[in-house]
Amino acid sequence: MTTVVVAGGGVIGLSIAWRAAQRGFSVTLADPSPGQGASYAAAGMLTPVSEAAYAEKELFALGAASLGRYPAFAAELATASGEPASFRTAGTLQIGYDADDLAVIDELHALQDSLGAGGRRLTARECRRLEPMLDPSVRGGLLAEADGSVDPRQLTRALLAATERAGVRLIREPVEGILTGPGDGGPGDGGPGDGGPGDGGPGDGLGSGPRAGAGGGTGQPGSERAGGVRLTDGSTVTADWTVLAAGWNSAAIEGLPADCVPPVRPIKGQVARLRAPDGFLRRTVRGIVRGSSVYLVPRDNGELVLGATQEDLGPDTRVTAGGLWELLRDARALVPGITELEFTEAVARLRPGTPDNAPVLGPCRMAGLVLATGHFRNGVLLTPVTADIITGYLETGQMPEIAAHFTIDRFLGGRPE
Amino acid sequence: MTTVVVAGGGVIGLSIAWRAAQRGFSVTLADPSPGQGASYAAAGMLTPVSEAAYAEKELFALGAASLGRYPAFAAELATASGEPASFRTAGTLQIGYDADDLAVIDELHALQDSLGAGGRRLTARECRRLEPMLDPSVRGGLLAEADGSVDPRQLTRALLAATERAGVRLIREPVEGILTGPGDGGPGDGGPGDGGPGDGGPGDGLGSGPRAGAGGGTGQPGSERAGGVRLTDGSTVTADWTVLAAGWNSAAIEGLPADCVPPVRPIKGQVARLRAPDGFLRRTVRGIVRGSSVYLVPRDNGELVLGATQEDLGPDTRVTAGGLWELLRDARALVPGITELEFTEAVARLRPGTPDNAPVLGPCRMAGLVLATGHFRNGVLLTPVTADIITGYLETGQMPEIAAHFTIDRFLGGRPE
Repeated sequence: MTTVVVAGGGVIGLSIAWRAAQRGFSVTLADPSPGQGASYAAAGMLTPVSEAAYAEKELFALGAASLGRYPAFAAELATASGEPASFRTAGTLQIGYDADDLAVIDELHALQDSLGAGGRRLTARECRRLEPMLDPSVRGGLLAEADGSVDPRQLTRALLAATERAGVRLIREPVEGILTGPGDGGPGDGGPGDGGPGDGGPGDGLGSGPRAGAGGGTGQPGSERAGGVRLTDGSTVTADWTVLAAGWNSAAIEGLPADCVPPVRPIKGQVARLRAPDGFLRRTVRGIVRGSSVYLVPRDNGELVLGATQEDLGPDTRVTAGGLWELLRDARALVPGITELEFTEAVARLRPGTPDNAPVLGPCRMAGLVLATGHFRNGVLLTPVTADIITGYLETGQMPEIAAHFTIDRFLGGRPE
Repeated sequence: MTTVVVAGGGVIGLSIAWRAAQRGFSVTLADPSPGQGASYAAAGMLTPVSEAAYAEKELFALGAASLGRYPAFAAELATASGEPASFRTAGTLQIGYDADDLAVIDELHALQDSLGAGGRRLTARECRRLEPMLDPSVRGGLLAEADGSVDPRQLTRALLAATERAGVRLIREPVEGILTGPGDGGPGDGGPGDGGPGDGGPGDGLGSGPRAGAGGGTGQPGSERAGGVRLTDGSTVTADWTVLAAGWNSAAIEGLPADCVPPVRPIKGQVARLRAPDGFLRRTVRGIVRGSSVYLVPRDNGELVLGATQEDLGPDTRVTAGGLWELLRDARALVPGITELEFTEAVARLRPGTPDNAPVLGPCRMAGLVLATGHFRNGVLLTPVTADIITGYLETGQMPEIAAHFTIDRFLGGRPE
């Protein structure tokens, strides 16, 4: 059986592990605390349409494709895990707070149209009819009816249950480095090893069959090949395939060749959680308040998530008085009634940002190594499509057209296609 | 040995229990979670001078007397408990944010002078020299050099350790009602009883000796007498003396005669905690920001406490988005640098408010019952003096002059003196 080790147990790593196990791979996942990174803070907006204006065309298409897969993904996950997947499709209402903010909304609308995303422009009165808790002074909005949301913590729970049922071995230990060996051989002598493949040796199937093209043309015969991972406790997991899904930490994994280091950096996001009565907000409300962006994501269980700051200041996960104050200030400007709601939590986590805010997916020069990181603000949205792309690549050695734009090659002075 | 049961294990109940045990009483204290009520949220400002303007003359005198006892109280407590008592005397700087707020500061100053409390009026420049983190736009201030502070959670820990070492029996169960019996007898047939007095019967010493005057003249011979407490699990604790120190819950204890029910109601306070670098603020900073009151209390361990809202809305301990937002907004106006500080916690608790914002101390019509509640914003400040007053009363049957103003009689249409 071909073996896969996934480094990182956020929603991306977990969903890849689940899908790969479903398709017959023998999967090990290593993460000291699965779901406790960026996935833990995420609001779970599934808003490719509302994000469209911020993204390039390719990223919008990827997000729209992933949203399209969410209903089936969520239903299958719920069945496989026995856990609700908490997927909702109530739409997003984007609000302009004053005349300047409304001008930005109009720009967004034009950009959405150019992408064929088609949000619907609403008057202030129409906005308040949809969401009566909005401040009476809001100036207008843009409705993206197809947008959805999901509870990332519930998604994590469901994915953990599904991976366990699918036979994924979970090791609660951080990955420290990549094991390397000769490119034409197996994972090599990467240490004591556990979870290595069985009869036939780890090299089986690497030089022939559908994975002959591993690396998408960028893997060079004779160069080093990834053979699994070394954990911080010194133990190793050998594997035919090594999937790097460790979020912003992915760049710090030892043993990566320079041109396989994903250009990710930590972008801090601070998020507050409130408890709202039923029907307080019906759909995700996003707003631009005097140039500052804020969103409110309601859940069926009464949780209302306020987000999110973006700070490019290194690996700091402190919730700050100022970050929290800004969230409350801006959310309160849009929806004054939050004042009376219970505050239950504030957390900060680090998202993997990239130079173009798009993920890094698929093979790199080192054969056997597959990247799945850099999802920045879109990790939860891109979970189903990322899992499909990566497991499809493990099976076929091919990246689908929709993912071609997102390999690491785009940062290396040339694109593979 | 004369027995005492204390209902309530906040800083007031714990300090009374400790002092009473020191003086030879056999003490039982009942509280489901000691120190988790109002004491848990309290910022621990010891600011009789800064509070002077808000208080009547008698309350100022009581607060000043209590602050005067703090150094010895804290030192003795540290020795008795083996825990630091976290007492500081760095003063309070009261700040006026704008011209209107400064006018209020000037009124405070005049009122302080009339009480002989003597804060020192400072220019904006002088304020910023004392506290460089103050916003450059603050207009001036008032320095109370004698004010202090204490960490109420550390105080609670020390009091718990000291009571244990002094032999106080702690029962982690809420008090439901007062046991009553004939006023000329013992605690009567209040149920199975545990912890009752030993040889000689519970009535010993009640009809003679220094406690002959129990009730301060208001206890009527032949009327019912308190004989201990009944807990929510149905068990009872019989005792010669019953001290009611259950904060805002004191009014809900069953079996109290109408004229012994302390007129307390829950006043919610919301408090946020930040983590500050050493020397960020040197002393307590209080401010009036556009009419709204806020304070920042630094601790030696780096904690910076922001408080506090006052809401008279019933027994609700939810932290609200609006309460937290106001604290951060006002604290940020005075000290903009808090923006960068880590937010560590927000809690809300209920303080026992009274019609005149002053505590209810000492005997009432029901013999054997002693009240020690209603401390509102001043529980931590008034802890040493309250413990001394109440234990002195248990020993002598007399209330000292300084406490005469604070018996429940003031709410019954007449004062005892």
